[in-house]
Amino acid sequence: MKAEIIAVGTELLLGQIANTNAQFLSQKLAEVGINVYYHITVGDNYERMLQVIERAKSRSDLIIFTGGLGPTQDDLTKDVVADHLGHKLVTDEKAMANIRDFFERRGTDMTENNRKQALVIEGSTVFDNDHGMAPGMGITQEGVTYVLLPGPPSEMYPMMENYVMPFLASLGNEHQIFHSRVFRFFGIGESLLEAKLIDLIEEQSNPTIAPYAKEFEVTLRITARATSVEQAERLLRPVEEEIRNRVGEFIYAVGESPLHQVLYEQLLVKQETISFAESCTGGTVSQLLTSVPGASQVYRGGIVCYSNEIKHQWLDVPLEVLETEGAVSETTARLLAENIRQKMGTTYGVSVTGVAGPESSEGKPVGLVYIGIASEKQPTLVKKVQVAGQRRAIIGRVAKNALYYALQQLHCND
Amino acid sequence: MKAEIIAVGTELLLGQIANTNAQFLSQKLAEVGINVYYHITVGDNYERMLQVIERAKSRSDLIIFTGGLGPTQDDLTKDVVADHLGHKLVTDEKAMANIRDFFERRGTDMTENNRKQALVIEGSTVFDNDHGMAPGMGITQEGVTYVLLPGPPSEMYPMMENYVMPFLASLGNEHQIFHSRVFRFFGIGESLLEAKLIDLIEEQSNPTIAPYAKEFEVTLRITARATSVEQAERLLRPVEEEIRNRVGEFIYAVGESPLHQVLYEQLLVKQETISFAESCTGGTVSQLLTSVPGASQVYRGGIVCYSNEIKHQWLDVPLEVLETEGAVSETTARLLAENIRQKMGTTYGVSVTGVAGPESSEGKPVGLVYIGIASEKQPTLVKKVQVAGQRRAIIGRVAKNALYYALQQLHCND
Repeated sequence: MKAEIIAVGTELLLGQIANTNAQFLSQKLAEVGINVYYHITVGDNYERMLQVIERAKSRSDLIIFTGGLGPTQDDLTKDVVADHLGHKLVTDEKAMANIRDFFERRGTDMTENNRKQALVIEGSTVFDNDHGMAPGMGITQEGVTYVLLPGPPSEMYPMMENYVMPFLASLGNEHQIFHSRVFRFFGIGESLLEAKLIDLIEEQSNPTIAPYAKEFEVTLRITARATSVEQAERLLRPVEEEIRNRVGEFIYAVGESPLHQVLYEQLLVKQETISFAESCTGGTVSQLLTSVPGASQVYRGGIVCYSNEIKHQWLDVPLEVLETEGAVSETTARLLAENIRQKMGTTYGVSVTGVAGPESSEGKPVGLVYIGIASEKQPTLVKKVQVAGQRRAIIGRVAKNALYYALQQLHCND
Repeated sequence: MKAEIIAVGTELLLGQIANTNAQFLSQKLAEVGINVYYHITVGDNYERMLQVIERAKSRSDLIIFTGGLGPTQDDLTKDVVADHLGHKLVTDEKAMANIRDFFERRGTDMTENNRKQALVIEGSTVFDNDHGMAPGMGITQEGVTYVLLPGPPSEMYPMMENYVMPFLASLGNEHQIFHSRVFRFFGIGESLLEAKLIDLIEEQSNPTIAPYAKEFEVTLRITARATSVEQAERLLRPVEEEIRNRVGEFIYAVGESPLHQVLYEQLLVKQETISFAESCTGGTVSQLLTSVPGASQVYRGGIVCYSNEIKHQWLDVPLEVLETEGAVSETTARLLAENIRQKMGTTYGVSVTGVAGPESSEGKPVGLVYIGIASEKQPTLVKKVQVAGQRRAIIGRVAKNALYYALQQLHCND
């Protein structure tokens, strides 16, 4: 199947927003083995949209539109696609009720133009919008499937996951579903992971295997197409086993949660708490953990000890240690971790001290970092890590390393 | 002038990366009044690329390509465009020397395929790559201008700024330049700013006026096309004056630096220091300031006081205050700011305490925040702020508010 993604919106052509929708849709399609050949962005203009659609129809089997389903005069996607197909627009009563509800909940009157959002292409499958007003829709004509989705990611992502993926699975075979699993890796780069699995990735078509790198983490998603979850699981199992045989040592979790969320979840299960003493990461580790709603249940606080005085006065690192071994040293990392843990009264204390760059410090190279993990039950662990990149990437990678080693230490205590 | 942006790369179609290049280029072109009508993404495939180029030529005057200039067999952009134009590829000696240098500095041998990167389309203007190996190029034929740029943003952005913008300014008139100025706003949203200036934005073509919203800040860029900087300044001045008349109270700085960088720069100039006591922002304020290289010159450290115990034990907020007025209160914000300043020994102490959500806290609504700014010379300022959005946006906006009010207090002390 050849797919094409058409984003509609002048704000994209003005550079006001990036087309992250195309990336998200491409990932979802790649995961189920549908090849995307083109991304197109076009403005809110009837003639140009029509030309783009005609071109797409001549070369693609699946055309997914995002944007242009709203209530204003600028929103033309449904009109243009309906005209192209020679279909009418009709009111979808369920969508209309949803729109009425939306205004009732807000306590405001529905304006007339909002009725437009309940119009759908006659004969299409309608996708509920659980996070907004404009429904999506899908329709096949002359062997080409057209899918229309709203532009806001908060509406589009869940609609794609919950309604469009099952719709695509059932194309040509209405009893099929997609079923997938995500493995989360640490300590291995995306290219090395891909190299170790390249024969599987290239040979496999069901399940498909798709690696991704995002925010200094690497993940791998395997997706099976089958007639039931049980059948899909039978297809996934041998592939999972082979992946675990080859790179299992780098898997730290299975699922959609990033590292800081996994750490939060596991601390919560164990009813344990954590605190951080951060030097070179400047608050990034705390910021990541507190981005999780409910973080206060496992996190009590932290210190950003950016100067030697603060390391000494607040966390009792002796001046002698700072002068002889330096702030970036195993001893400093150990003392920071032990003392933040003891002073904050938490189960774990995690420290990070290193050189974020761009300049080296204490004669130590950019990217050299010591991470300390103190706990009640285990001797303090200090990891020496050397990471690559510019300042921003170093800080990001080091923060992930700190979260990862904290998680490892949690498991040691099991 | 009608422009079209063509991104080349299968990694985009797989969703491995987002097409942020198209956004960046669209912004740059919008700033100088060049209209972008299409973004296209196509894979590393000769036939499909050729079809896309032929289509683009039939409808656009300016076609900007990104990606596909590298050393591998997949990198086809130059070949396809050269064939389309009926031109040869020739070695650019300056680019070749740059590539040799690159390998010498790394102390590794240049492999044969790297010579390919020095090939350029015969007759084109060559753009130096100051951050990588593959040069860019621009050429006009039959009224259509083709610009080829490398894909990595770290190479493409500076090449666009430094070489392509002057090249575009000189199209049709070789003595023209673009000259621009950025105003940074706080306390006004993008839509209100646009509404207050809409007549100017729509009437003006030289200079152009372009508002942007990014990472919880709003900026406005005015750009003049002229034959000299002096002439451009004469064009910018009355527009700047009108903008200042209408919305000058919301301008906090002029230039490219975001809020945390402006705060860093002004602290550095004054040889002053700052420390943070963060509750609901969980380290975000510290993280922003320490993202600036050299932050240790103005920043000594901070505390993330995520629990009441830490606010009490570490920052001396009386339990009585926490029990009666609450952690989210004017008194707590004031004490946190004063005590972090005094304990860290800094010129300024900044506190943030509020409700990041998703649940309300102490009966106080999500998004309610108190920000305290203590200093040596002024009485402590406490700002009560109510921000909107989901947890992530609340934290981001509140952190920017804290930086903004700290900056204001710096100015009060002048």
